[in-house]
Amino acid sequence: MATITMKEISRILGVSTATVSRVLNNSGGYSEGTKKRVLDVLEKYNYQTNVVAKSLRTRQSKTVGVVVPDITNEYFASIALAVENFFVPYGYSIFIYNTSANIEKERLLLRDIVSRGVDGLIYISGNPDVPLEAHKNNIPVVCINRHKQLNSEISVVESDNFQGGYIATEELLKQGCKRILMIRDKRDIIPQNERFKGYRKALADHDIPFEKLLVQEITFDAFHSAKCVNELISASVSFDGIFASSDILAIGSLKALRENQIPIPADVKVVGFDNNSFGEHSYPPLTTINQDKTQLGESASRLLLDLMEKEMKDKRMEIVLPVNLVKRDTTF
Amino acid sequence: MATITMKEISRILGVSTATVSRVLNNSGGYSEGTKKRVLDVLEKYNYQTNVVAKSLRTRQSKTVGVVVPDITNEYFASIALAVENFFVPYGYSIFIYNTSANIEKERLLLRDIVSRGVDGLIYISGNPDVPLEAHKNNIPVVCINRHKQLNSEISVVESDNFQGGYIATEELLKQGCKRILMIRDKRDIIPQNERFKGYRKALADHDIPFEKLLVQEITFDAFHSAKCVNELISASVSFDGIFASSDILAIGSLKALRENQIPIPADVKVVGFDNNSFGEHSYPPLTTINQDKTQLGESASRLLLDLMEKEMKDKRMEIVLPVNLVKRDTTF
Repeated sequence: MATITMKEISRILGVSTATVSRVLNNSGGYSEGTKKRVLDVLEKYNYQTNVVAKSLRTRQSKTVGVVVPDITNEYFASIALAVENFFVPYGYSIFIYNTSANIEKERLLLRDIVSRGVDGLIYISGNPDVPLEAHKNNIPVVCINRHKQLNSEISVVESDNFQGGYIATEELLKQGCKRILMIRDKRDIIPQNERFKGYRKALADHDIPFEKLLVQEITFDAFHSAKCVNELISASVSFDGIFASSDILAIGSLKALRENQIPIPADVKVVGFDNNSFGEHSYPPLTTINQDKTQLGESASRLLLDLMEKEMKDKRMEIVLPVNLVKRDTTF
Repeated sequence: MATITMKEISRILGVSTATVSRVLNNSGGYSEGTKKRVLDVLEKYNYQTNVVAKSLRTRQSKTVGVVVPDITNEYFASIALAVENFFVPYGYSIFIYNTSANIEKERLLLRDIVSRGVDGLIYISGNPDVPLEAHKNNIPVVCINRHKQLNSEISVVESDNFQGGYIATEELLKQGCKRILMIRDKRDIIPQNERFKGYRKALADHDIPFEKLLVQEITFDAFHSAKCVNELISASVSFDGIFASSDILAIGSLKALRENQIPIPADVKVVGFDNNSFGEHSYPPLTTINQDKTQLGESASRLLLDLMEKEMKDKRMEIVLPVNLVKRDTTF
């Protein structure tokens, strides 16, 4: 913020700030000579429309906050990118807040978001109750992939996680799997819980009894997934399919299967979830459930823009986006 | 920005804004009764310190911009995260600008960055000449992994790319490779050029003649890398080692080698560059050159904070961070 202000220009030239403003907005009511003098000073001091000053006048900061648990996770980064691509043509800039899945950090960040007066907030987090602080402060909020746990006043865009869990499991069942291991993130969060429900429903629909031992709840990390699969193999737990509730967990599983010389997909078939780019290059290339990250980001952005511009802050909406199976080489 | 302003509080209570401000800053000069009335209105309207208003008074926006070519690339996201982690404790928020490696978009974003009056800018991009616009507007800039092409007034933090290219090639030479294919990003950008120079120097130091055919300049993409290796194999070009100038290109190469049943590392050894997390989970796990992303982000942030706070805008600094070899299974 080192550029010259309208006030300074007015002082230099001995004209009112109103005149300077009229020149800048090309709205007439000044002589050609004044116009030229203002523009000369502008050029000399390299004036730029000061968004900060403008925001104070218009009560719009032209900023949107995006809260993600981990920007280095391609899934969240892809959504954030879609939000940025949506809002930039409307003149908005994007603050990205990374919570590191840390609830304390998240609370501090939210305080900052509110005090900065962002015009709207897109929220992707494992912590269900916090965005209410922004909502309470009259900042429109749209959550991605969180629902039900939330205060019903907040709008949500989500993937059809239940359906995704169902079709992932069904793909394994269709290929003859009878004992399907589900490896899931142990956190009690909606997307994980819904995928698990889809898994159970698909088993039930195919008359396969549910076995608690075959559901492993682990820390969200490829290494933990590899360790988990290695331990089950050592303990002689038998399984012929793995549904990993995210691609990161699937990648760890593939590693453990390779280390144990278990042929994929001949002996064990694997389906992931998310469709991140590394699944295309894994060995074998990973069959997975595609979440449309661009669509999630765009739908949430469009909804947020409506809430921001049309003052529909109290209207809650829920948008559920379909998912689809991407077949690669970890199933036939 | 829908919270109440100091001006509105003063209007409601019939006191001056100066009084409201003194109450908010706890600086005395008002009665207990006034204090209580101000705080009651605050509570009622849920006042938060308005950073936007403050920024207009202090000429600090307490924001730092980070420009990256692709936030979905873990390498850039990791640096952006380190920048955020560094600045948040100082009360700054981070704008992230994604150029999509598009020079036109980058120009527009830079205009926005300047007009917003960010306090400083961290710049990672393939386009060498653009941040001068920010610099010209008196916004301190630190570039990561760009030098020489730049105007010498701009500070830079970089990995030792030359050294990285050298030790990657040396690792392959030590393991007996005689014909080392280098697959590099075709863009004429400093990190890629320096890695290539390191490759040539290592070959020269080991009396291996340089062969132009063994340097492939391709689009930065795993698919193009796989295609390139497949084509060389089809054309019976012989090679016993691959130095890929980034892990993404290495992953594509591994895929092509597997598809051609070429044993890794027995027949062809591979070394990547960057040390992104997917290299740990590739098949085989990838030997690579580690760039310390956290250190790059932190060093650039520390330097930027100095430039911002100490008004050392005209002092140029260059920080070169060491890289190191991470041995995994694509070399012995």
